Amino acid sequence: MVRIPRRIFGSPLEHELGFGKNVTTDGRMMNPDGTFNVERQYLSRWDNTYFHLVTMPWAWFFLLVLGSYLVLNLVFTGLYLLVGTDQLMGMPGGSIWDEFAHVYFFSTQTLTTTGYGHISPVGFSANVIASLESFTGLLTFALISGLLYGRFSRPTARVVFSENVLVAPYRNGRGVMFRMGNARKSELLETEVQVILAMNQRDDDGAIVRKFYSLPLEISKISFFSLSWTVVHEINESSSLLGFSKEDLEAANAEILVLVKGTDEANQQLVHARRSYVATDFIWNARFRPVITRNPRGLPHVLVRQLGAYEELAG
Amino acid sequence: MVRIPRRIFGSPLEHELGFGKNVTTDGRMMNPDGTFNVERQYLSRWDNTYFHLVTMPWAWFFLLVLGSYLVLNLVFTGLYLLVGTDQLMGMPGGSIWDEFAHVYFFSTQTLTTTGYGHISPVGFSANVIASLESFTGLLTFALISGLLYGRFSRPTARVVFSENVLVAPYRNGRGVMFRMGNARKSELLETEVQVILAMNQRDDDGAIVRKFYSLPLEISKISFFSLSWTVVHEINESSSLLGFSKEDLEAANAEILVLVKGTDEANQQLVHARRSYVATDFIWNARFRPVITRNPRGLPHVLVRQLGAYEELAG
Amino acid sequence: MVRIPRRIFGSPLEHELGFGKNVTTDGRMMNPDGTFNVERQYLSRWDNTYFHLVTMPWAWFFLLVLGSYLVLNLVFTGLYLLVGTDQLMGMPGGSIWDEFAHVYFFSTQTLTTTGYGHISPVGFSANVIASLESFTGLLTFALISGLLYGRFSRPTARVVFSENVLVAPYRNGRGVMFRMGNARKSELLETEVQVILAMNQRDDDGAIVRKFYSLPLEISKISFFSLSWTVVHEINESSSLLGFSKEDLEAANAEILVLVKGTDEANQQLVHARRSYVATDFIWNARFRPVITRNPRGLPHVLVRQLGAYEELAG
Amino acid sequence: MVRIPRRIFGSPLEHELGFGKNVTTDGRMMNPDGTFNVERQYLSRWDNTYFHLVTMPWAWFFLLVLGSYLVLNLVFTGLYLLVGTDQLMGMPGGSIWDEFAHVYFFSTQTLTTTGYGHISPVGFSANVIASLESFTGLLTFALISGLLYGRFSRPTARVVFSENVLVAPYRNGRGVMFRMGNARKSELLETEVQVILAMNQRDDDGAIVRKFYSLPLEISKISFFSLSWTVVHEINESSSLLGFSKEDLEAANAEILVLVKGTDEANQQLVHARRSYVATDFIWNARFRPVITRNPRGLPHVLVRQLGAYEELAG
Repeated sequence: MVRIPRRIFGSPLEHELGFGKNVTTDGRMMNPDGTFNVERQYLSRWDNTYFHLVTMPWAWFFLLVLGSYLVLNLVFTGLYLLVGTDQLMGMPGGSIWDEFAHVYFFSTQTLTTTGYGHISPVGFSANVIASLESFTGLLTFALISGLLYGRFSRPTARVVFSENVLVAPYRNGRGVMFRMGNARKSELLETEVQVILAMNQRDDDGAIVRKFYSLPLEISKISFFSLSWTVVHEINESSSLLGFSKEDLEAANAEILVLVKGTDEANQQLVHARRSYVATDFIWNARFRPVITRNPRGLPHVLVRQLGAYEELAG
Repeated sequence: MVRIPRRIFGSPLEHELGFGKNVTTDGRMMNPDGTFNVERQYLSRWDNTYFHLVTMPWAWFFLLVLGSYLVLNLVFTGLYLLVGTDQLMGMPGGSIWDEFAHVYFFSTQTLTTTGYGHISPVGFSANVIASLESFTGLLTFALISGLLYGRFSRPTARVVFSENVLVAPYRNGRGVMFRMGNARKSELLETEVQVILAMNQRDDDGAIVRKFYSLPLEISKISFFSLSWTVVHEINESSSLLGFSKEDLEAANAEILVLVKGTDEANQQLVHARRSYVATDFIWNARFRPVITRNPRGLPHVLVRQLGAYEELAG
Repeated sequence: MVRIPRRIFGSPLEHELGFGKNVTTDGRMMNPDGTFNVERQYLSRWDNTYFHLVTMPWAWFFLLVLGSYLVLNLVFTGLYLLVGTDQLMGMPGGSIWDEFAHVYFFSTQTLTTTGYGHISPVGFSANVIASLESFTGLLTFALISGLLYGRFSRPTARVVFSENVLVAPYRNGRGVMFRMGNARKSELLETEVQVILAMNQRDDDGAIVRKFYSLPLEISKISFFSLSWTVVHEINESSSLLGFSKEDLEAANAEILVLVKGTDEANQQLVHARRSYVATDFIWNARFRPVITRNPRGLPHVLVRQLGAYEELAG
Repeated sequence: MVRIPRRIFGSPLEHELGFGKNVTTDGRMMNPDGTFNVERQYLSRWDNTYFHLVTMPWAWFFLLVLGSYLVLNLVFTGLYLLVGTDQLMGMPGGSIWDEFAHVYFFSTQTLTTTGYGHISPVGFSANVIASLESFTGLLTFALISGLLYGRFSRPTARVVFSENVLVAPYRNGRGVMFRMGNARKSELLETEVQVILAMNQRDDDGAIVRKFYSLPLEISKISFFSLSWTVVHEINESSSLLGFSKEDLEAANAEILVLVKGTDEANQQLVHARRSYVATDFIWNARFRPVITRNPRGLPHVLVRQLGAYEELAG
């Protein structure tokens, strides 16, 4: 049986998140990496082509580009073979397979506009195909050129989050905290963080509804995100988390949504990062290990890879 | 005879829309797709070249590019023929038409910088033309490269609107509502919607003037436009729509202007969407069918194509 | 002798413009086209290269590109001639001038990577030069490609202003007004205008200083700049222009600075436009002619080219 | 022994800078050029590739591009040699070294897609390599094309700061001032400056902590950064600098952080500039020399190179 909290302290969210009231009472709404746990129907598959092409991993992108190169060459090879290899001058003799290979390589020389010329089109049809192929080649590489720039220049932050949320001693009581670091060389300016608690609750009729609470932070905006940043919410008498145990949070299907935004200094664009924590990500009574050391020249050195390191506390 | 409302409730618009007071008392001001029903004179046709090239449909764009390729080749073919084909080495003999075809294909090989070399320029004039043609080719494809990127990276939202505005039961009374969905894979952040009612009215002198009223919404801003969004204006005692029948709205040439803006997460750019509804788009006493289901994995699934589906209510 | 106003009504500017207090008491501060009447020393001529390349007129840009093409080819021609034409295979014989021409054309075939091959490098030095030339060619056209896109995508508004500022009857008194139009097809959203009056005055010590006053407007922001916009400042008891004659304005070296900003819908970028009017641009007792007509389909039609048309009023 | 101030006047910073409380009590936090004196660990060296490629000096960038061209050609030359030069048609005979050179030059002709054709691939393996090489070449130059545009279009300000901070007579007392100039041709709009004083202090327990104070300015925002701008903080009774001598500032390891932001008019992008001054950069009892003269046409002329020129005052 699900234990549903009777009373929640703290400030209900003053703005709508956009998840509605009835949709998502089980499962997490946000995946750990900040994408939404929602599926959408699209009107046309083309609507998202550019999105996919600039967001797919680099390895896939290069495979796709290489694959397109192979396929385009195969298509044009087929066309040349269709109109007959007697329309190509300079073809060396040989088996069917040799002929195919030479036409294919002639096609690559045309698509890339290399055009050595030891094989060249002389017949009318082959010439028409070749003139379209070199045109297609230039268009395709113009397109790839644009996509490469689109991929490079896309505003993305590389904010690293600790794997866990710690419940640690803070001031005279306890605080909920996680740690973030900037894993890029370019500075993040005017970085803001907002933390939202999502929780199942029973409304007056006893129905389960999902409610959202803002968790106020010790510091919610910094001018320069140069070092690491331990984001802290104090569990005081006005905190929505007051009195909840780990079991309570699990029962209420609690989820902590972290929304970060800042300005990337390299291109002055606004960037966003998101992270979601669920109840099982909570570590009770632990604190983060230091993450800033001094390098040999005495400068502060942020060990981004050890952002999540913590130690459990006695008692 | 046009029935003109005597009294309008609700809040007159606190900002100017920019349509003036006397211009548009008949016909709709905004087309259903959000473009304005206005014609403007331009100082120079070149001022809007880039706008047209990046906003025209893809099919037209590719036709234009292909057409330019053909025309450029015809122009250079004409120049080569003008200076004489004896300036080209390697020309096979043949009829006038064969000669034209070979010069044309030589031109395509030069414009795309393929340059097989079985035909090549040897005379001075042909060499000058060829050096300009390959230069032109590179410039043209550089330009196309930029246009392709401009088309891809243009900030556009793909917000889908229901075809109709429903007047449906809402709380203890009735509400005016339409539904929107995000038909892109990339999230829309901080999405805001503003709804304006435009209506003809008689001023104190009895002249017909067009007035604008803001329609307050149940929710006018959401953090994540991930699911569908039913935008609702309650027809209460402070609503400008209180007491109007469908006939009243038609008589007053009423128009509902919907202005949406948000931030596309993929490129962090602000995007806008607009929609206009007129009196005949209103369905009285109906409600939207559910549009969010569960997919096989239990995730919410937004059926964007059925956004506008509604059912009429009894009574 | 310069007549200096004793008393100025209205609101002094609450923010600093950046012109200082003592610098510009004679001559206009802003040229009619909105550029500043100031010269700056630059640290390095390269600092403004990109700025010049994307802002110069198209004709100059293409001349510069064509010029670079010619100069680059001349430089490489010189290098080939330096190492000797015996390093090039396929050179036809002829006079010195013929030789130069053929090497030059070979250079153009290499720079554009056309490479017909009827002339080709065989010597070591010529091969080194050719490999650098084709590399240079690709880099240069990559650069031009970027510049073309930079020129196209630069956020610019095309706001047209009336040539004159009219002093016309307005409400129960008079108003100062000018007219603006959007000469682009893409809409300008959330357009704001700010009007500042700059004027010489005597301070308490009798010295001439330049002071700035904000001129409040009837409407200073519109949602859609779709039609024309007549910007009006009423000369009422709180106006800084109250009681001034044309001669007074000239004596005080008065200048009206118009600052417009809005969001271009095509690329969602903020754009600015500026205009400056001096005392001799004022027309007293005149009003603008209508600029919006109906086109054959009944739509409002903005005659942008007649924005400045006015008629003098009797009396 | 470090003399630590007992009492600080003025307003403590109302927002967090992001440097934490305990990290940086010795050494400067910001380098004179505005970069931070912090080292960060990165998750992957690829995360900062684009950042490095668009921010490295132009000379290094061109060296890197040229180096890549040489290395790519060497790699492909190795592959051709591996499969045997008998797969290449048209190879002139000669020594091993001659053979290497000819294969290398064939490679350059393929990578740049020049393809003269006096040497061309006829064997299967050489053809496969050549088809990959021309493909690689086009991809590489597409990438360079994108990087060149990324470098050009990166939003950067070129704000020049005086080398020193002067303590000069101001109004009835003294002021701390430095001077800035815009060394670009494009205007900076809505330029804001914020000045922060960082200083070591003893907290109640006697521990040294670093505290931050806002230094209010005579003018902190200007509409047009067209001329030079002398930024002034008055040392009055509410100033955090009141009563400090040069030695006090050095003892407290004082640092003045200057944060400038504005909108570059050429591309309408927000740009930032930063500068840091330490105690030894202070000049006591001096004033800046004039930096604005009149050019022959009577226009104000800003001598940006002499921004830092000052003269010491008697007494």
